[in-house]
Amino acid sequence: MPEPITDIAHLGHVELLTPKPEESLRFFVDVMGMTESGRQGDSVFLRGWDDYETYSLMLTAAPQPGLGHAAWRTRSPQALARRVAALRAAGTEVAAHADSFGHGEGFRFRDPDGHVHELYYETEWYQAPPELRPALKNQAQRYPARGVNVRRLDHYNCLAVDVRGMREFLAAHLGLRCTERIEMDDGTEVGAWMTATNKSYDVAYGKAPPGAHGRLHHVTFALDSREAVLQAADTFLEAGATIENGPHKHAIQQTFFLYVYEPGGNRVELAHAGARLILAPDWKTITWSQAERARGQAWGMQMSESFRTHVTPPLPKG
Amino acid sequence: MPEPITDIAHLGHVELLTPKPEESLRFFVDVMGMTESGRQGDSVFLRGWDDYETYSLMLTAAPQPGLGHAAWRTRSPQALARRVAALRAAGTEVAAHADSFGHGEGFRFRDPDGHVHELYYETEWYQAPPELRPALKNQAQRYPARGVNVRRLDHYNCLAVDVRGMREFLAAHLGLRCTERIEMDDGTEVGAWMTATNKSYDVAYGKAPPGAHGRLHHVTFALDSREAVLQAADTFLEAGATIENGPHKHAIQQTFFLYVYEPGGNRVELAHAGARLILAPDWKTITWSQAERARGQAWGMQMSESFRTHVTPPLPKG
Amino acid sequence: MPEPITDIAHLGHVELLTPKPEESLRFFVDVMGMTESGRQGDSVFLRGWDDYETYSLMLTAAPQPGLGHAAWRTRSPQALARRVAALRAAGTEVAAHADSFGHGEGFRFRDPDGHVHELYYETEWYQAPPELRPALKNQAQRYPARGVNVRRLDHYNCLAVDVRGMREFLAAHLGLRCTERIEMDDGTEVGAWMTATNKSYDVAYGKAPPGAHGRLHHVTFALDSREAVLQAADTFLEAGATIENGPHKHAIQQTFFLYVYEPGGNRVELAHAGARLILAPDWKTITWSQAERARGQAWGMQMSESFRTHVTPPLPKG
Amino acid sequence: MPEPITDIAHLGHVELLTPKPEESLRFFVDVMGMTESGRQGDSVFLRGWDDYETYSLMLTAAPQPGLGHAAWRTRSPQALARRVAALRAAGTEVAAHADSFGHGEGFRFRDPDGHVHELYYETEWYQAPPELRPALKNQAQRYPARGVNVRRLDHYNCLAVDVRGMREFLAAHLGLRCTERIEMDDGTEVGAWMTATNKSYDVAYGKAPPGAHGRLHHVTFALDSREAVLQAADTFLEAGATIENGPHKHAIQQTFFLYVYEPGGNRVELAHAGARLILAPDWKTITWSQAERARGQAWGMQMSESFRTHVTPPLPKG
Repeated sequence: MPEPITDIAHLGHVELLTPKPEESLRFFVDVMGMTESGRQGDSVFLRGWDDYETYSLMLTAAPQPGLGHAAWRTRSPQALARRVAALRAAGTEVAAHADSFGHGEGFRFRDPDGHVHELYYETEWYQAPPELRPALKNQAQRYPARGVNVRRLDHYNCLAVDVRGMREFLAAHLGLRCTERIEMDDGTEVGAWMTATNKSYDVAYGKAPPGAHGRLHHVTFALDSREAVLQAADTFLEAGATIENGPHKHAIQQTFFLYVYEPGGNRVELAHAGARLILAPDWKTITWSQAERARGQAWGMQMSESFRTHVTPPLPKG
Repeated sequence: MPEPITDIAHLGHVELLTPKPEESLRFFVDVMGMTESGRQGDSVFLRGWDDYETYSLMLTAAPQPGLGHAAWRTRSPQALARRVAALRAAGTEVAAHADSFGHGEGFRFRDPDGHVHELYYETEWYQAPPELRPALKNQAQRYPARGVNVRRLDHYNCLAVDVRGMREFLAAHLGLRCTERIEMDDGTEVGAWMTATNKSYDVAYGKAPPGAHGRLHHVTFALDSREAVLQAADTFLEAGATIENGPHKHAIQQTFFLYVYEPGGNRVELAHAGARLILAPDWKTITWSQAERARGQAWGMQMSESFRTHVTPPLPKG
Repeated sequence: MPEPITDIAHLGHVELLTPKPEESLRFFVDVMGMTESGRQGDSVFLRGWDDYETYSLMLTAAPQPGLGHAAWRTRSPQALARRVAALRAAGTEVAAHADSFGHGEGFRFRDPDGHVHELYYETEWYQAPPELRPALKNQAQRYPARGVNVRRLDHYNCLAVDVRGMREFLAAHLGLRCTERIEMDDGTEVGAWMTATNKSYDVAYGKAPPGAHGRLHHVTFALDSREAVLQAADTFLEAGATIENGPHKHAIQQTFFLYVYEPGGNRVELAHAGARLILAPDWKTITWSQAERARGQAWGMQMSESFRTHVTPPLPKG
Repeated sequence: MPEPITDIAHLGHVELLTPKPEESLRFFVDVMGMTESGRQGDSVFLRGWDDYETYSLMLTAAPQPGLGHAAWRTRSPQALARRVAALRAAGTEVAAHADSFGHGEGFRFRDPDGHVHELYYETEWYQAPPELRPALKNQAQRYPARGVNVRRLDHYNCLAVDVRGMREFLAAHLGLRCTERIEMDDGTEVGAWMTATNKSYDVAYGKAPPGAHGRLHHVTFALDSREAVLQAADTFLEAGATIENGPHKHAIQQTFFLYVYEPGGNRVELAHAGARLILAPDWKTITWSQAERARGQAWGMQMSESFRTHVTPPLPKG
């Protein structure tokens, strides 16, 4: 049995595209309670108070909403070199990317569905300005006590026309382990949750209709308690944000969740996982059947129709 | 720069020695809400509802309380072989240990302070009997709704006469990373928190008086929320258990904690870490000074005198 | 302006009828965490750990599920006499009822929809047996740390063919104040929430179809936190109980709720109100319009169809 | 047996005196999350988002910190007249007080220890300006999602040289019921908790040294969960506020508490009571003995020395 690949340390940041950059920025700062930590070109960089790097969200003005790219930090420079070499050996085109805000040289590639990933190792640790310095030195930044108080980036979720192929690609080349998946009665894989860490997932893929490549389903930030997620629902209600689903508990992965749309149209999730961690290095993938999936969420809720149809950029009509 | 060692997957179980085995068992089952999953010789095996292996707590009748051993699961068979070889190469005596309940061949050794560690890879996944089968298939066992409802083992904490030496030993031979430590004005290291995972610590060491080797400070189980820790305080109060310190929030590591004595005399902690994880593969160790340490816990609480003096087995008088 | 009537102190207990008395009893004891405090005839008496009287739930074997009666404790003997006199003066038949378990002489009458109410003043305070004595003397009974850990009775909810008439009857004769109500565009009143205390409601009435008198919608018990309600959802899930709606937050009254069916078929709600109290003695009734009501619950959830159709005893078909 | 007096509806507001009016105002707005609703002379009026009247806190510049007065709303105009008449009949001087901000004619008097109380009935309901209008119409004001998010005034706590006399005075003239009290072995009453509502206390008195009249111990605001109290502790920590005691759970009244000093020197408490209510109209006062009191708070915490010595205005030295 080959040894597990442990080269990816964690998801570092995601780039969200927004056609309403000003409104999106206000939402992430005022409502989500994030902090702006830089600007570059058409992008603003944002962070939760516990993100150790300079930022975890890159917000970029664009004609359409969606995912710009997702960036993964490797465990070491050697690990970075190994992953790039492995991708190239498998025929994947990998392009070096310099001048990134807040981190060193990156290597970008497209996964089989067309989503852009970046790998990097060198990074800048966040240095809080005096007014944002925390009382406890083991914390990156002062707890803001504003809006939703997003703690850190948790994961993101995309669609893929070929979920199974995507899962196999990410396992083979990045070493992501699949913790849970959904397989329909006809054998089609329609969902896969994968992790590089002890979190039960860092990225997930759902099924896209034929030809609808590169869609983002949502980006997720972590909160410290289920009560904080409930408070967030009230904050969204007062802010006039569109709550789509939740708060409720997923059956798959058991995450306590709340989905909202940011002004640019992208779905954003707030989540709390309790003390759940995947500690087993050889975790046995949980496979949910079509019938099990049909039962809805943990306590019986059925997601709204929009949860299946609203992605960014939008699916073609019909 | 050498690559980080990632051979240890996680802390698997701890063995607690108790001079009152019946009372200790009742405490862990009735008050802590754990489940008995086996017996062997003078030992009873117990588990939280989310521990994926057969057990996380081995309770062994003994003349004195304390830690029997702590067992770490490696990431692969190869990783196990590598660690054993590295320990032996460094002159540490390592003994193969067969016939362990619930896992395959182990390798035992003593750390510089005399605490016994075991490394193993092969393990038995818990198979819940029908009456304990969970409603959701991604969960090891039914949530008990009894007592404190301990979720899983979290970490353990020992004393060492030479904390710095201990930290260096565990880093060199097991690859444990030090996330936080305390250094007194005279340069003495009096505390070190180390991790093999994305948890901020899996084991910690405090300073023992000269000659007082092999002491256990406490064993910790994880709960799902700070509210659950508060509920546990009420449950302990009603059960007549001795609450020693908390609930409160540690400054170091920011864990929300509650300490209690189990009937055998060992200190047990319940903890919730919120969404805190150490994701950085190159986490910069936080060093707390003597003055910072003197400020007490996060919100100002000072631990009771017993927190410094009560360990198992007890320290010599004077 | 006449002075407000303050003669009713609080809702004392409700009698639930169940065609499955053994299963219902097991549900309330094992899953809800209530304590049996007595038996009389076909009835078992149950209590939450914070109910100060002997019981708050009377469970009576019957061919059909539903509400047996609801009992209100008055503020004084004089208040009891006043209410009985007022009811009789208004032509309501009031029957003295002796031999009640756990309280003194009661006076029973039917409201305009046929629901039976009882008024009483003398009552027995619960005396916990030694094994159920609490650690803190200002608490009626030990916190059980079992199942859902129901704290106390909160309120009940019935249907009435004429909601407006019901509200006026309860205001005139019991002095219940209406805190919130729903009025449809055609002027029909389809919901009314009324209180005798600082709780925002002790009883509520929804609209019944013509001729469908005496229906119970649900009985509600209070928990100490929203987190406890979420934990209850997991406990119900593991126990195989039918979760109907929630957890979610009501728009009306803002209660955090969870609805489940007990084995006899009656709907039971768990609720937490946060720190919400109605302190104003002249609270201005909130009236929700048809359009406002159609928006669903606080964070957007729409109740299941069964929430409108499932009552006990069942409505006639068609 | 005479009927209970139910003339007092609830505590309406408290006036805090502060020698640092600007810093105090910033603390209550920025850290406590309260809203300024008016100014008059040297006073600023503040409110929690759920206070239904215009304000619950009057902050008045003064040379020394302390309590200006506490105001109680009666249940009706008739109730107001009755209480004033009863006080005067007992020889208490009562002065009509016009021109109060936000409420109608008040009647002020001093209790036996010299604390000023005011009774009033007519009041102004808060009308939120457009930017503070809540999403749900049964709420006074938008949830701020800022700082501690204080919900409403809960109670206040003073010292009295003669606690027993104070309790008897408030019971006789205002109808306040004593829910819990402390009596020392020598018969001295050193604490009394009294209520006009279903809350377990609206005001409490502790023992003052001889001659030290008119001291304030603290003013308390209610939060919606224990988790919110814990979040508040972090917010105070980051804001540099002085946390004095807690978070912990009182043995007496079982309130979950957190004490902090506002910049003017007054102690402020945040509290959550869970679902605890005093529903019994004839609640049997709980009396705690000297030994019971010595055991500390519910889970064993001992209050800091300052909790006994720090009051406003300060006690004379020695």
